[in-house]
Amino acid sequence: MQFELTKEFISSLQEFIENGKDKTIQKALHGLHPADISDVMEELKSDEATYIYKLLDNDEAADVIIELEDDELAKLLSALTSKEIAEIIDENVDSDDAADVIQMLPEQKQEEVIAQISDESQASDIVDLLQFEEGTAGAIMAKELVSVNINWTVAQAIREMRKQADDLENVYTIYVIDDKGVLQGILSLKQLLFSATSTRTTIKEIYTNDDLRSVEADEDAEEVAGLMEKYDLVVIPVVTSANQLVGRITIDDAVDVIKDEAGRDYQMASGISERVDSEDRIQRILRARFPWLLIGLIGGIFGALVINIYEHDIKIFPEMAFFIPLIAAMGGNVGVQSSAIIVQGLANKTIGLSSTGQKLLKELGVATLNGIILALVILAFNLRFGDSLALSYTVSIALFCVIIFASLFGTLTPLILDKVNIDPALATGPFITTANDIVGLFIYFIIGRFMYSYFEETEAFVEAILLIC
Amino acid sequence: MQFELTKEFISSLQEFIENGKDKTIQKALHGLHPADISDVMEELKSDEATYIYKLLDNDEAADVIIELEDDELAKLLSALTSKEIAEIIDENVDSDDAADVIQMLPEQKQEEVIAQISDESQASDIVDLLQFEEGTAGAIMAKELVSVNINWTVAQAIREMRKQADDLENVYTIYVIDDKGVLQGILSLKQLLFSATSTRTTIKEIYTNDDLRSVEADEDAEEVAGLMEKYDLVVIPVVTSANQLVGRITIDDAVDVIKDEAGRDYQMASGISERVDSEDRIQRILRARFPWLLIGLIGGIFGALVINIYEHDIKIFPEMAFFIPLIAAMGGNVGVQSSAIIVQGLANKTIGLSSTGQKLLKELGVATLNGIILALVILAFNLRFGDSLALSYTVSIALFCVIIFASLFGTLTPLILDKVNIDPALATGPFITTANDIVGLFIYFIIGRFMYSYFEETEAFVEAILLIC
Repeated sequence: MQFELTKEFISSLQEFIENGKDKTIQKALHGLHPADISDVMEELKSDEATYIYKLLDNDEAADVIIELEDDELAKLLSALTSKEIAEIIDENVDSDDAADVIQMLPEQKQEEVIAQISDESQASDIVDLLQFEEGTAGAIMAKELVSVNINWTVAQAIREMRKQADDLENVYTIYVIDDKGVLQGILSLKQLLFSATSTRTTIKEIYTNDDLRSVEADEDAEEVAGLMEKYDLVVIPVVTSANQLVGRITIDDAVDVIKDEAGRDYQMASGISERVDSEDRIQRILRARFPWLLIGLIGGIFGALVINIYEHDIKIFPEMAFFIPLIAAMGGNVGVQSSAIIVQGLANKTIGLSSTGQKLLKELGVATLNGIILALVILAFNLRFGDSLALSYTVSIALFCVIIFASLFGTLTPLILDKVNIDPALATGPFITTANDIVGLFIYFIIGRFMYSYFEETEAFVEAILLIC
Repeated sequence: MQFELTKEFISSLQEFIENGKDKTIQKALHGLHPADISDVMEELKSDEATYIYKLLDNDEAADVIIELEDDELAKLLSALTSKEIAEIIDENVDSDDAADVIQMLPEQKQEEVIAQISDESQASDIVDLLQFEEGTAGAIMAKELVSVNINWTVAQAIREMRKQADDLENVYTIYVIDDKGVLQGILSLKQLLFSATSTRTTIKEIYTNDDLRSVEADEDAEEVAGLMEKYDLVVIPVVTSANQLVGRITIDDAVDVIKDEAGRDYQMASGISERVDSEDRIQRILRARFPWLLIGLIGGIFGALVINIYEHDIKIFPEMAFFIPLIAAMGGNVGVQSSAIIVQGLANKTIGLSSTGQKLLKELGVATLNGIILALVILAFNLRFGDSLALSYTVSIALFCVIIFASLFGTLTPLILDKVNIDPALATGPFITTANDIVGLFIYFIIGRFMYSYFEETEAFVEAILLIC
């Protein structure tokens, strides 16, 4: 059965909260998945959300807290004492999620919470995890895992695992380590269940280590997620540089990284520099959007300066102004297309080994075809409806040149940024559009001046011929 | 150990291929993950790729074929006979992957291949799966799964499972069904391993069915992927409308759907209408990009018509042309930002229950703040460096109006498209930029005409006053 969040549900909850009908609220929330309770809380005012949160039992509270969005989580945490937070993340939350929660707190409160966690190993796990930089494998790994010693018998292993597995919601894989904690291989529950002929079979006889993949804790989280996606891994072990097992990363955390990254590239391309969504506060959305608009504005000023240079031409041939938006827009559109393909290719690692030269050549092919067809379309339009031959040719030639330039520039920029280790997504969106706008205008006016003087000369020449005749 | 694809590796492989050194090739590829072999093939020419593919043994060939990108797969399939294809996908490929492969073939060849598959249940599974429309849960599910009857004992279950599990690389979950095949619940290997007190314990005593989630085969694949992501599911069972178990969807397929969707939205926003990457053929890239450019071109023509109306104004005040690109670009930028936030919110389901009115109000807040600041920035610039008071005020007022209009239009369009069941991502990119360009130009010139006449009158008035004095 699927829970559907409705306005009616929210407003009846609000009524219960107002009247302090705690039992009714608990009944209404009973059986809901933590992710659904989190959705409900996000629809409520922050004091209402805190109110229903406090009605949850410790287990539920732990499950719900890891589902909350950052904004909502921050509000909730500020309404809870450090003792309350410590109780929630004490035993029922995986170490990685607990560290994520604690990271949201001011430093002072972080220490208070950690000091009040009664489970010592949980507290030390959290302290360990807090040290990893955001965006590394260490920052998304959990310390909880099931491991067995390579020298144990199956019976011994099962006994030990029962203790360890209590902590874990899903046992994906059992890790096999030696006495020094060095990762030796893996054992699936399937192997444990089906391969052992007796309970005295040792782990050494049944574990596997071909195709064993692990990552180090300081590796880039995106790289790790890409690896898991490529090799269809549900979980990957994390090791130290000496190959000692320290944690594991599960696919759900990798999915979050993959989605975040794809969403971020999209937002960058749309001129939004921080991860925001429509439910965020106005200040945050403003901060994410304003810088790009400012870049656009500065670009527009440069555009104005370019046109300023050609003011005299416009005074004589005001029809030159007609196609300014077309030239600017097409340069931007083509540039964004080209850069998006490269940025996605880099992100998905589908960009092959072919050299930059080959990529440019290919892009040149696409641009030439697009350019020729579009230039002809606009030429046909202008010859039919326009009344200036010079303008008709100017627009078509300029359009063709702008498309070629914009596509090469759009291809090259993200490739270069990537080479010098700057996020290539920066090259998409307003930046590339703006640059192409300005260059496009230059191309347009330079060609325009040339064309007009050419047609004037021709006219003068024809007139002279006619005069002579 | 991580395999790294290098140019050297590829060129030495090409040398081996040329000289027919099959053994050396097999040695070079030995131990590589199928995903890596697929990457290698994508770097080779298509006859070279086919050559090394035919050197793989049947197991490897099966693992590699499911990793190939569509383009590469199509080329390979056309080089293989239907008998060869049938042998590869006969037993070693999951039914969902086999159906994906067959779907790439022309209808005639599809039938030939299916007729030559010796494993009857595989053949019928494939035929079943081919009937599901692309984009549904049925199209991404696999038929292979491990299920046990609710009335069996643990011993009986383990015996039956050994047979079934041979087929399956990873056993995630065991499904519990009744005599009619109706899904009753799930059983994790952990429960089977740790909960049974004796081998005569029945499944009924140890299985669970709280939090049991399933989807129907005709549900939207994106919805299913979203469900799996939200509830952190590694696998989800697929049932008929009568709740009979027919298949399962694993997280790796859901990740593909999630990534595809995120990538597609990004591409749409960048004006690319089909899923293409930089390694695709020129024709395909052209087809994906040309339509959007044509829309941009048509938009540019409309822009020209708008300016045409105001040709007279430009002749008198050519400086009006300076800020055409700025106004057009800013309208586009703001519109893309607003629509991207809504499109992502709709895709990620983070858009809450707040009404369209509330969303517009919030967007209006952001737009007003952005608009005021940017209008003041450009006003300061123009007052300092420009020499026309009328132009200075025109640009600032028009910019403010354009930002307000573009943000409301950018917010409203995807929401409306979503309401009438059209993909809201269509509203981003060239479409919204183009529409905002045109409206922006109108706003600019209307305000310009008003401002210039106002300042002229004022001047005339001042002059008249001066004259009287």
